[in-house]
Parts: sequence; C-alpha cells; structure tokens
Amino acid sequence: MRNFDINEDPHRRYNPLINEWVLVSPHRAKRPWQGQNELVVTEPLPKYDPTCYLCPENVRANGMKNPKYESSFVFENDFAAMKQDEIIYEEDIKYTFFQAKPERGISRVVCFSPRHDLTLPEMEIADIENIIKTWQKEYTDLGAIKYINHVQIFENKGSVMGCSNPHPHGQIWAQSSLPTQVEKTQNNLKGYFDKYKSNMLQDYLEAELKKGDRIVIENDHFVALVPFWAIWPYETMIISKRHFGKITDLTPEEATAFAKILKQLTIKYDNLFQTSFPYSSGIHQAPTDGYDHPEWQFHMHFYPPLLRSASVKKFMVGYEMLGESQRDITPEKSAAILRELPDLHYKMA
Amino acid sequence: MRNFDINEDPHRRYNPLINEWVLVSPHRAKRPWQGQNELVVTEPLPKYDPTCYLCPENVRANGMKNPKYESSFVFENDFAAMKQDEIIYEEDIKYTFFQAKPERGISRVVCFSPRHDLTLPEMEIADIENIIKTWQKEYTDLGAIKYINHVQIFENKGSVMGCSNPHPHGQIWAQSSLPTQVEKTQNNLKGYFDKYKSNMLQDYLEAELKKGDRIVIENDHFVALVPFWAIWPYETMIISKRHFGKITDLTPEEATAFAKILKQLTIKYDNLFQTSFPYSSGIHQAPTDGYDHPEWQFHMHFYPPLLRSASVKKFMVGYEMLGESQRDITPEKSAAILRELPDLHYKMA
Ligand SMILES: O=P(O)(O)O[C@H]1O[C@H](CO)[C@@H](O)[C@H](O)[C@H]1O
Ligand SMILES: O=P(O)(O)O[C@H]1O[C@H](CO)[C@@H](O)[C@H](O)[C@H]1O
Repeated sequence: MRNFDINEDPHRRYNPLINEWVLVSPHRAKRPWQGQNELVVTEPLPKYDPTCYLCPENVRANGMKNPKYESSFVFENDFAAMKQDEIIYEEDIKYTFFQAKPERGISRVVCFSPRHDLTLPEMEIADIENIIKTWQKEYTDLGAIKYINHVQIFENKGSVMGCSNPHPHGQIWAQSSLPTQVEKTQNNLKGYFDKYKSNMLQDYLEAELKKGDRIVIENDHFVALVPFWAIWPYETMIISKRHFGKITDLTPEEATAFAKILKQLTIKYDNLFQTSFPYSSGIHQAPTDGYDHPEWQFHMHFYPPLLRSASVKKFMVGYEMLGESQRDITPEKSAAILRELPDLHYKMA
Repeated sequence: MRNFDINEDPHRRYNPLINEWVLVSPHRAKRPWQGQNELVVTEPLPKYDPTCYLCPENVRANGMKNPKYESSFVFENDFAAMKQDEIIYEEDIKYTFFQAKPERGISRVVCFSPRHDLTLPEMEIADIENIIKTWQKEYTDLGAIKYINHVQIFENKGSVMGCSNPHPHGQIWAQSSLPTQVEKTQNNLKGYFDKYKSNMLQDYLEAELKKGDRIVIENDHFVALVPFWAIWPYETMIISKRHFGKITDLTPEEATAFAKILKQLTIKYDNLFQTSFPYSSGIHQAPTDGYDHPEWQFHMHFYPPLLRSASVKKFMVGYEMLGESQRDITPEKSAAILRELPDLHYKMA
C-alpha cells in the first residue's frame, strides 16, 4: 500500500460544472501509438481562394454573392440545423418513451477575416477585437428575438474537427431551448449559488490563482487555465476575473484583454506541435431568456483533440462513450507545457 | 404556423436512459460535404500478419509471446488505464474544487479470433458464441474480485474509432467505481423502477415492438433497434426480450440468439456502405457490487460514426460539445435503411 500520488496514480476527478467524473491515467502517457494518423496540411494557403465560398465577392451554394467585406461578415447558414418556423404542437403524454418537441432556431456563420489564410493567432489584436464586437452584436440581436433563449457562439477549427473550410470562421446557433450541456452547467452553477451565495467560477478562479499550477496565461482581466477536470489533453478555459454573465458586459478594456488572451492562447496552441492547432471552442454565458442570472459567469472553453503531435489525436471512443472520459496526461503537466511555450508564433520566429 | 411533423421539422428528443436531449434536423440530410474524408482501406488483410502483436505466437511490446490460441485469447493490457495497486487516501474536504480519488482497475484485451482478417460479421455463429462465453467468464472472474464493482466490455472497431490494430479484438476495463455514463443510466433505470415497479427497458422494448418503425432485427430472444433518442446516424441498441441483468444470465438458447443478432447486425452495417463498418460498441449491464439490481436490463450499444459513405462521418464537435448532440437523419429513416439491407455479407454476394 502506498499513499495516493495524484501525479502518478490512476484516479478520477470531479467536474462541478457538469457533475461528471473523468478518469486520469498519468502513467499511460508513454504508450506507443500505431493507430490512425491525421492528415497534416503544411502548404501555405493563398490570401484569397477563388473556390472558397467564404472569401469576399465569391458566390455561395445558394447563389448569393458575398459582399466585399473588410473585417468580419455574418450570414445565415444555408444548411441550418434549425428553422425559424413556428410549429403547432401538443404534448402527447401517452408515450412516455417518445418525447419529442419542435425546436426553433437560427444558425449563422461568422467569417473572422476577409483573408483566407489568417487564423486567430496570426491576426492583429484589433482584428480580434472586431470579432468580439461582432459576437456582441449577434448575442444582442439574436437574444432580442422573443423565442430565442440561448445563443451558442462557437468555432470548429481544422478538418479533424469537422470544419470543411480553412477560411477563418465560427458559427452561432441560437435557439428556443437551453442545450443539454448548458442546462447542466446552469443547474450546477445555480445549485452552488443558492448554497454558498457566491459564484462558482469566481471562487474556482480564486482557488486556481492561489495554486498556480494549472494557470497558462493571466492578464489584468482574464485567465486561461487547464481546468482541474479537463477531458481533452490540452483543454483550456478562459475565465473573466470580474464577475459578469455575458459578452455584452465587457468593458472596452476587458474586450481588449479578451482579444489579447485569445491571441496568446492560440499562439501557444500553434507552437505546441508547430501546426495550425485544431480545436472546437465556444462561449458559455447567461441565456437570453429575460431573467437575471447571477449564477452565470462568462467563460470560454477550448476542446483541442491533439495528444502527442500534429498528427496523433486522443480518441474518445469505446470506454469514453460507454464509461467516462479518460485522459493520459495530467492537467498540471499540460498547463506547464503550454505555459512554457513562447508567445511568438512559430512562423514568425 | 404548421402542425408539427416529426419527419420534417427540427426537434429535440429525450433520452430517458441518461436524461439528456438530442437535436434532430431531418431537413439537413442533403447538405453537401466538402470536409475531411476518412481513409478507406480496401485491400484484403492476410490471415496471419507476422507484425501483428495480436496474432497467435507473435511477441507483444512487453516481450511476452502469444500462445497458439485457436478461438479467443485474453491478456492484460500492457498499457492499462488503471492499476491494481491499493492506494491509501484521505478525502481532503478543504478543497471543494479539487476532488480527486484514486481508482483501481484491470484492463484486458480480448482477441476474438486467431484469424487476423476476420471481423464479427464474417465469423461463424459458433465463433461468436465462443466470444460470448469468454465475455461471461471475464464478467464472472473480474466481478468476483472484491474491489471490482463494474466490468465494461467494449470494442473499438476501425482506425476512425481509435483502433490501432485490425486484428479482431475488444477490451474489458474493470474498476472500483461506476463510470459516469453507467452511473447516470443506473440512476435513471432505478428512478423508473421505483416509480413504476417495472423495468424501463422492458417497457420501452414493448412500446417499440408495437410501433415497429425503429426495429432493425428481431429474433426469438433479442431485438436490434435504432433508439428513439439515437445520437449517431446509424446507432443501434440490442435489447434482450426476457428481463435479466447480466451476461451470465443468458440461457444457452439466448446465447445463440445473441450471437446470431450480433452477426446479422454487423453484416447489415458492412453492407450499408460496402465497407468494414467502424463503430464502438459495448455492453451495459448490472454492476458487480454484490447488490441485487432489478432495475438493470442487459443491453448492448453500437455507436458507429459513418454518415453518408465509407469515408464521410458525422463530426460531434463545436455545437455538440458545447450544446448538445445533433443528428441529420431521423432514427426512423436509419432503421428503415438498415432493415432493408440484405442479410448476406456483400463480400459473399
Ligand atoms: O486501448 P487502445 O485500443 O490502445 O486505445 C483506444 O481505446 C481506448 C478506450 O476506449 C481509448 O482511451 C483510446 O483513446 C483509444 O485509442
Ligand atoms: O456546420 P458545419 O461546419 O458544416 O458542420 C460542422 O459543425 C456542426 C456543428 O458543430 C456539426 O454538426 C457538423 O457535424 C460539423 O461537420
């Protein structure tokens, strides 16, 4: 019998945001990999691609022509997962097993830049501030629609994350219900708030800043850290230091600090394996249901799949789908690796 | 305003097993795909591969030589996610945000056949019965270990599911805790049992057999269906008709019927896109914690990622990770497609 050593022994960690556990296997990082390698694109992209449906002045699948936009550009997704139609529906309580409810929503695409070849880490701070302004406008406009109660801002980056076009862009799916993950998070934030009369993520951030070993970047207004309960090898979360619930609450200084930490974090990501680092990212914030949400704190998740190199990712498969998420490197180690990485993009070095 | 048409309108469906919702977008199936294509291997595999660490008489990474096995063969995973060591641990309640507990467990690899080139759909029924016997023995042996409370039997098939070796094999991860997904399922099964004094999956199966439109295969003892709340395009679940909780409860007739439905289902999967169909599958059954579990019913999940062809999969990324799972084809349509597929493997046709 030995004493528990969190850096060496297999263990489970608790995620209080969604009330789930993750299995951590620190000793397993060295296992050899003979499985699938992801395709790594190394050729530089052109600034403008005549075949790209997101580049300025090109024509999209539906025949519409993009404007000659100069910063960001937003349009309705031509193949939206939801529709705006109002649907008449009566709950059928006869069938307990067949519960289905119509869902209304709007999907938009947000082009981050007219340049086909630029991603967040390579953009100027001013360009990123401009994307943040666009997100604020969309959150406000979509949130103002009566039936829209939640606005999900997210980005899928890289073909390994199902992104079909390298032109820098994100998406917004706004809808009438709170999606499952958001509802879970809200319930747990609310439970904490009701119990401690305090904000969970504020208290968590305070505890993390005291410990220090999972912090990746800190500036005046934001912190990027590897959560104690992170699932993906290099998963991070950006949390605001001040307590506020939504992107429209940002002061101008905070907006700049948010742009800076976004750039710095994505530079570190690119530098990790000297590749355009794939991830899905997204903002979790207060719903637009018209209620006060003191339990919410604005934060952003980054879920990147790469594990050991530009071509070897972590597979969340059999055990993870049927049992629970599992990771091979500790969050503390991942944070240390990210923290040490240079702040200058490898292409500039 | 129109009346809700579940076959046409975007909607959410409820999964009572894990108390989560899925977003269904029936109209979205026709969207074009310009994203990543998976590598499709078409070359036939050799019956024996001298470089395969799972083939009989070959040597594994740890220097051990496999026996000249003739049916199935089980060994401890050389890079296990858990260890058997007993760890001393005192709960530290000071840190609410840093909850970690040591986890003990055993990981085993189960080779399904000495033949390097055979997968379940191409094996004889007797071979599959033999795999079932092996699973029964492992469930019994591992479950009998005092600290093991849960035995997860699963298979990752295909490189797209993180499987690093085409030699037919599955895994077993046995551990002291109930993994997150299993605990959720158990809580919901238990809630239903306490409320209705009846088994949820028995009642669900009865309701599905009455409706019929999500049934893929039915034999005397088992049913394969696309669950009403399925997430993956061609996700299925095999449920036993009789109420029993664990694989060791199978009668000899039921074991044969289980082998038959496994073969028939995986043949349909291979026939769908005329490819060796990738999936993660696994059995959910009663834990081995020594208690009676009348709420549990033996069932098996299949989570296959392919969407439109052998090379185009569904990506569960941005919205799905931050919001909720989303699908583009209705479960009824998927079930109809699978149902119509021939029962003869395409390679035999
Ligand atoms: O154990 P294997 O086959 O090497 O690994 C595979 O299955 C495991 C269990 O689902 C996953 O944790 C790994 O990410 C995956 O690559
Ligand atoms: O909308 P896109 O970029 O075509 O599609 C991508 O993102 C969506 C939202 O996460 C996913 O549902 C799709 O599976 C993925 O390929």
